[in-house]
Amino acid sequence: MTQLSEALAGARVYDLEQPRYAGAPVLPPHEPGLLLKLHRRHEPGLGEARTSASALLVMAEHSGTHIDALSHQAEHLELHGGVAVNAEVQTPEGFTRHGIDTVAPLLTRGVLLDCADAGHEIGADDLARAAEGVEIRRADVILVRTGAGALWEDREAYLAAGGIDASGSRWVAEREPVAVGADNIAWDVFGRDDPELGSLPGHLLLLVRAGIYIIEALNLEALARDGVREFAFVCLPLKLRGGTGSPVRPIALV
Amino acid sequence: MTQLSEALAGARVYDLEQPRYAGAPVLPPHEPGLLLKLHRRHEPGLGEARTSASALLVMAEHSGTHIDALSHQAEHLELHGGVAVNAEVQTPEGFTRHGIDTVAPLLTRGVLLDCADAGHEIGADDLARAAEGVEIRRADVILVRTGAGALWEDREAYLAAGGIDASGSRWVAEREPVAVGADNIAWDVFGRDDPELGSLPGHLLLLVRAGIYIIEALNLEALARDGVREFAFVCLPLKLRGGTGSPVRPIALV
Amino acid sequence: MTQLSEALAGARVYDLEQPRYAGAPVLPPHEPGLLLKLHRRHEPGLGEARTSASALLVMAEHSGTHIDALSHQAEHLELHGGVAVNAEVQTPEGFTRHGIDTVAPLLTRGVLLDCADAGHEIGADDLARAAEGVEIRRADVILVRTGAGALWEDREAYLAAGGIDASGSRWVAEREPVAVGADNIAWDVFGRDDPELGSLPGHLLLLVRAGIYIIEALNLEALARDGVREFAFVCLPLKLRGGTGSPVRPIALV
Amino acid sequence: MTQLSEALAGARVYDLEQPRYAGAPVLPPHEPGLLLKLHRRHEPGLGEARTSASALLVMAEHSGTHIDALSHQAEHLELHGGVAVNAEVQTPEGFTRHGIDTVAPLLTRGVLLDCADAGHEIGADDLARAAEGVEIRRADVILVRTGAGALWEDREAYLAAGGIDASGSRWVAEREPVAVGADNIAWDVFGRDDPELGSLPGHLLLLVRAGIYIIEALNLEALARDGVREFAFVCLPLKLRGGTGSPVRPIALV
Repeated sequence: MTQLSEALAGARVYDLEQPRYAGAPVLPPHEPGLLLKLHRRHEPGLGEARTSASALLVMAEHSGTHIDALSHQAEHLELHGGVAVNAEVQTPEGFTRHGIDTVAPLLTRGVLLDCADAGHEIGADDLARAAEGVEIRRADVILVRTGAGALWEDREAYLAAGGIDASGSRWVAEREPVAVGADNIAWDVFGRDDPELGSLPGHLLLLVRAGIYIIEALNLEALARDGVREFAFVCLPLKLRGGTGSPVRPIALV
Repeated sequence: MTQLSEALAGARVYDLEQPRYAGAPVLPPHEPGLLLKLHRRHEPGLGEARTSASALLVMAEHSGTHIDALSHQAEHLELHGGVAVNAEVQTPEGFTRHGIDTVAPLLTRGVLLDCADAGHEIGADDLARAAEGVEIRRADVILVRTGAGALWEDREAYLAAGGIDASGSRWVAEREPVAVGADNIAWDVFGRDDPELGSLPGHLLLLVRAGIYIIEALNLEALARDGVREFAFVCLPLKLRGGTGSPVRPIALV
Repeated sequence: MTQLSEALAGARVYDLEQPRYAGAPVLPPHEPGLLLKLHRRHEPGLGEARTSASALLVMAEHSGTHIDALSHQAEHLELHGGVAVNAEVQTPEGFTRHGIDTVAPLLTRGVLLDCADAGHEIGADDLARAAEGVEIRRADVILVRTGAGALWEDREAYLAAGGIDASGSRWVAEREPVAVGADNIAWDVFGRDDPELGSLPGHLLLLVRAGIYIIEALNLEALARDGVREFAFVCLPLKLRGGTGSPVRPIALV
Repeated sequence: MTQLSEALAGARVYDLEQPRYAGAPVLPPHEPGLLLKLHRRHEPGLGEARTSASALLVMAEHSGTHIDALSHQAEHLELHGGVAVNAEVQTPEGFTRHGIDTVAPLLTRGVLLDCADAGHEIGADDLARAAEGVEIRRADVILVRTGAGALWEDREAYLAAGGIDASGSRWVAEREPVAVGADNIAWDVFGRDDPELGSLPGHLLLLVRAGIYIIEALNLEALARDGVREFAFVCLPLKLRGGTGSPVRPIALV
């Protein structure tokens, strides 16, 4: 234990979360992304020297850097593992199965596949090439850099960036990671339908068919800049009961 | 690196976050705590086999298990370090100084002081007694179990539970931790004024005067049950720009 | 026209809206009722003599005094007029049929039936007795006083008050009003199932079968106190696109 | 009374409210304007033939067609009538003085001044010319058509449209209306500072100095099309306790 805390304290920490603010890139169904409204203020006249300030958040589950729960996606009205979507499973206050609150803290080995030069649609070949010289183990987290992460402050450019195509999602699924992640808005190529699977094929292949979590809108720039390809990975989703996802601040440790 | 990820993967993980749901205990200024409203649904007729579901969150920064930023508290209209509160520092969208987005990931050594038997107001003596046999180092995280954490599902009882008094807050501040935490609603004894400092004296002593973060509404039951007194501690606040706090899912590793 | 504005200006105005504030009575599915969070403030240092203050509202459509749109209720998954509920009609952002935005301003004759002495369940006989000596015409608005309106500030008592039973809803439906209203939380007797129709039978009889709007949580105390039984009635629902209801401030004029 | 309801029922009704939907024009401080999130759905499997659907609203007070309360504006930290802004008057949950809940229903005579041809900045001369042949009485509502109302569905164009300048606001204030209104986003010319009064001079002149309410984002197209210059006017602000404004659906009757 003491050794572990010393190892953690001694590690180099890479913060993989993009900053959160109103107006940051978000897909239309997840508007307004994030609103933070400071309503309690530090001000004179409250009767004590000490004062409190605090804000209300209005936030989409899938805003900013976030992780998708398995309840986020269905195929033919079934969640992963053949869980039928009905009124007991899907309620106004969230899901009674596969909610984000069922996801354990992720503490595992991570690998970075840098595909920033691979173009708008990153396929199996691109991933294989980026993985040369890196061992990928079962239950790892596989992070793919598309390069979009550098565009976060430019909303339009960020949302127009590419992603991983169906062949790429199949390639990662075969390696049986516990989760995958990317630095673009939706892992998949947003706005590009797969001929067989339709829109967001990776969401179907990974979340529904394979039960693999997807982390989106990561910032992988510093990892790439430093040439880090293997790391310890920590991601702690909030236990939002019945939620289909959670904002997170993942970190990589080397 | 590989060693670190193996060490993490091999560690026992204690999840210190309480579950999040509408109606969970919350102080009046932080109502409604959390609302999760599922608005996108899995349903037939959307044109594809794949469907998405997602929810909107309405959430107080200080709801559920959360960490306080230094901007959360002021004394005589100054934040920690003598930062004057004015319209440039305190804005409708949050703080330009000491926001939660300025807090680095917490990866450090943690200690548990179990004071569940110490009564409604936990003082310096109680903490000293609980710390017997445990080394506390500078920059540790000091977690205090009041026992309230077991009452989470009973909102009234939870909110009526005790906390740490001013002498206790002074005792921990002297040990210069990076953060402190407790399993009750507000670290301090809510509703109990200190003769000298007024309400929530620990908030003033720790956040404003000492620059020490406070983590509230932790679940420390499993740590106590297993007799764990030292551990590696990880807490990853969301970088909510200008926020006065963040919901978090802290973990302890042994 | 000039005559009309003079007539309006000369009329006695009865304000039938209950005050709106956090913590006012609301049914569980419509929590949090209303939150008003002032985030922009009048404060020094903003660079001009003039300053603006404003708030964000988080509000249920069916909070406080409000009117139900026909989309609010369905029977066997059909809205009023046999409109089938499917993914084109019912969307994450509201209804494309029978939304509150399709409701014209209500300007019509209104009658008050004072049943405050009729007990917890107000039936057809009670309404008939209260209507003695009052002509009810087609397309009127029929308002029923249960007496609950006087309890608004006592949330528990208000929510426990009675309402109109299925026989009463049938009685008013036969008179073909454009809308009905009451001063309790749900027109119907909340928590009391009809043997044939189940919960909230008036919602089914009036909104789905008869296409009659329901106005809830009115304040009818002043009308009753002054013995007003006939009046001009004005109610102006907000055109919330696709909404299932709208907060309103109805008035009666004599 | 019967006469009044017959007069109302027989009147031609002009609906002066713009439709409300996510993405409608709104000024930046009032984002997100309106969100309507349907979370309770009509769906099979809920145990009864009858089902309920309802939505949560996240809405700025000053979104869509709305009326400003006197608390919305201050000059040198004083509200209208010399009310000093302090922590008792301005609270996290709104104002204890001059809140929108203190505004009585508006039922009065209204006049339309059509200045759609007057250019980007509408001044006293433009208003005087538009008022030729129309009597304006004390306590009337004066509505000014800028022509922007026709642009509602084109957010960018709508927000770029002109408004009334300081001379125009002085001109209307001298006529002592109970309220004024316009069909643009802010009555004033948004983004255009007055040399003496700074930004939004009409807000200062009307709300703070003169105690005259301002109604914004009206739809005056139909009134103008039909050449209606005088009418009966009804506007019913919601009694949002402490609010700085309210969404409304004003109507004109002829």
